[in-house]
Amino acid sequence: MDEIEKKPPMRRIATEEAFSIPEHYDAIRALAAAGSEEPDLVMWRHFLGNSRPAFVDNLMDVDRQRLRTMDELGVGMHLLSLTSPGVQMFEAGLAAEVAEAANDRLAEIKARHPDRYAGLASFAPQDPKRAAREMERAITKLGLNGFVLNSHTNGEYLDEPKFRPILEAAAGLDAAIYIHPRVPPKPMADLAVKYALESGHWGFQSDAALHVLRIMYSKAFDDFPNLKIVLGHMGEGLPYWMWRLDYWHKNGGRRPPLKKLPSDYIRENLMITTSGMDWAPTLKFGLDVLGPDNIMFAIDYPYQEARLSVEFMDSVDIPDDVREKIYHRNAERIFKIPSAPGIAATGAKENA
Amino acid sequence: MDEIEKKPPMRRIATEEAFSIPEHYDAIRALAAAGSEEPDLVMWRHFLGNSRPAFVDNLMDVDRQRLRTMDELGVGMHLLSLTSPGVQMFEAGLAAEVAEAANDRLAEIKARHPDRYAGLASFAPQDPKRAAREMERAITKLGLNGFVLNSHTNGEYLDEPKFRPILEAAAGLDAAIYIHPRVPPKPMADLAVKYALESGHWGFQSDAALHVLRIMYSKAFDDFPNLKIVLGHMGEGLPYWMWRLDYWHKNGGRRPPLKKLPSDYIRENLMITTSGMDWAPTLKFGLDVLGPDNIMFAIDYPYQEARLSVEFMDSVDIPDDVREKIYHRNAERIFKIPSAPGIAATGAKENA
Repeated sequence: MDEIEKKPPMRRIATEEAFSIPEHYDAIRALAAAGSEEPDLVMWRHFLGNSRPAFVDNLMDVDRQRLRTMDELGVGMHLLSLTSPGVQMFEAGLAAEVAEAANDRLAEIKARHPDRYAGLASFAPQDPKRAAREMERAITKLGLNGFVLNSHTNGEYLDEPKFRPILEAAAGLDAAIYIHPRVPPKPMADLAVKYALESGHWGFQSDAALHVLRIMYSKAFDDFPNLKIVLGHMGEGLPYWMWRLDYWHKNGGRRPPLKKLPSDYIRENLMITTSGMDWAPTLKFGLDVLGPDNIMFAIDYPYQEARLSVEFMDSVDIPDDVREKIYHRNAERIFKIPSAPGIAATGAKENA
Repeated sequence: MDEIEKKPPMRRIATEEAFSIPEHYDAIRALAAAGSEEPDLVMWRHFLGNSRPAFVDNLMDVDRQRLRTMDELGVGMHLLSLTSPGVQMFEAGLAAEVAEAANDRLAEIKARHPDRYAGLASFAPQDPKRAAREMERAITKLGLNGFVLNSHTNGEYLDEPKFRPILEAAAGLDAAIYIHPRVPPKPMADLAVKYALESGHWGFQSDAALHVLRIMYSKAFDDFPNLKIVLGHMGEGLPYWMWRLDYWHKNGGRRPPLKKLPSDYIRENLMITTSGMDWAPTLKFGLDVLGPDNIMFAIDYPYQEARLSVEFMDSVDIPDDVREKIYHRNAERIFKIPSAPGIAATGAKENA
């Protein structure tokens, strides 16, 4: 291993970076081969040929091309998460097994490259109690940094009472859940597939935003005030709707009462990332309505072009102390990542 | 009639103002009474009791309270449109009859108050050829100012080939179509009804944004370059997604080719209004990414509070020439409203 020790001018932690493991890839291929109608597989089928496509190699790799790309761009750390839709298309037993294998692998990767990787743990909502146990293991035993969930599971969202153990575990462990998008449930995706709009054009953000609103109106943020949800793509549009959400909340009448306004939960219980949105207007909008402590840098490697994201965040016209928060300080706080590279490896922490 | 002739400091034209006629209200009540499962009726049922609720009186009134409210706030003109979901829940024949009656009524209202009202014509997409004929009549015979469509019709969107006569008519008549939101098709609304999120919280904007993307990817803006679509609620979120839409368009591969980028169509073929979004951050964002010629003032009377909208637009920190464009100049251009009050009444136009 010849990891180049670059000294980037500012630490860069990218927080929505996809990886995969062979067990995961095999399970997805098996599902596709069995003729599953999961709309997410449309995208995978598009990629899956006879030979393993390059992007899957990029997902599996954490030792070669990924590190080279990171080094070239001065990206210090990837916060890795099992690529969407994770284990959520599989039957419960297989899903839990793949999630647990992915978490073990993440812990190995972190041990091998303590300065370069952190990890979000997967879990299988199909079996909520086993999920909660795995969430605890992932944080307390494996030392992972939070959780990833790829929006709905078989058309169900985290607001369902049966998923309460999952929210309870996340809050109890004080570990954030990154809700990564996936294609909406089939009845909704069907409205968009004609022009392939069911993913990044429309479906991803519409579904992920709905997910958070459902969690909000299930009173989960009232019951677990420290519950933190992370959304990519500059908040999946929710910041844009804060005023209107409050207005309808106050004037609608048919919705469950909440302790606070929707915009309060968006400011207090959500974090957003810049994944897939390397655009000054949305970043400045986010800073305007959420402030500098709620936004984190993300690339969405290998799906988006890493160079674009870094060049954007390096050059966008914001104060350097804000850039620093977005590039690493907020991620260090939310995901409990030691505040300087190298510290985790030696255990010689100065600041807990 | 004691119409007070206030001289507001700046002409204010509100462009998404709802009205109704008894035939429309009766048809909606009949549908509800027949046990229709249209998700839009959930909202109506909430309002409909044994006696006619006050908001329906406000919808029907154009001579009393509405004018008083306008006068109090210095709102010179309402651009009226048949309230959502218009005629789109009815069977084709009834739908066309109610639309035609509403258009006749609008022409009468305009004749009675030429300085105070303009109108968007309804049509029944259920019968596209009859719709196209009515669209022509509404503009050339009745002198109305554009069209209103309440998003999908029985789950179908304007991109469907059978609706081409409608897009062709709008483009041929050089008259904009205001796509007003309605509750999404039932399979999508079902994901949101648990917490009543199917309307202004989430469903309205998700569905209306999908509608425009479907129109875009049907190549309608390539085929009819002067086709203008108007969206309320600061563009139903689409301005927020411009960068990401372009990125996915260029990198996705599975979508139909288009002559331009999605952001080009959003800038060139869309107009957005401030309805239901009296919030400086979204207005400034819209000005930043679309410029001052693409945004129009709207209240959404009687559903939103008119005073809030006027106080917001009067006080928001933007240059007065931009405020003037938003308050009236853009609406005058897009909806062919004579540029000073009184001119239409006498016919003594100075500028065509």
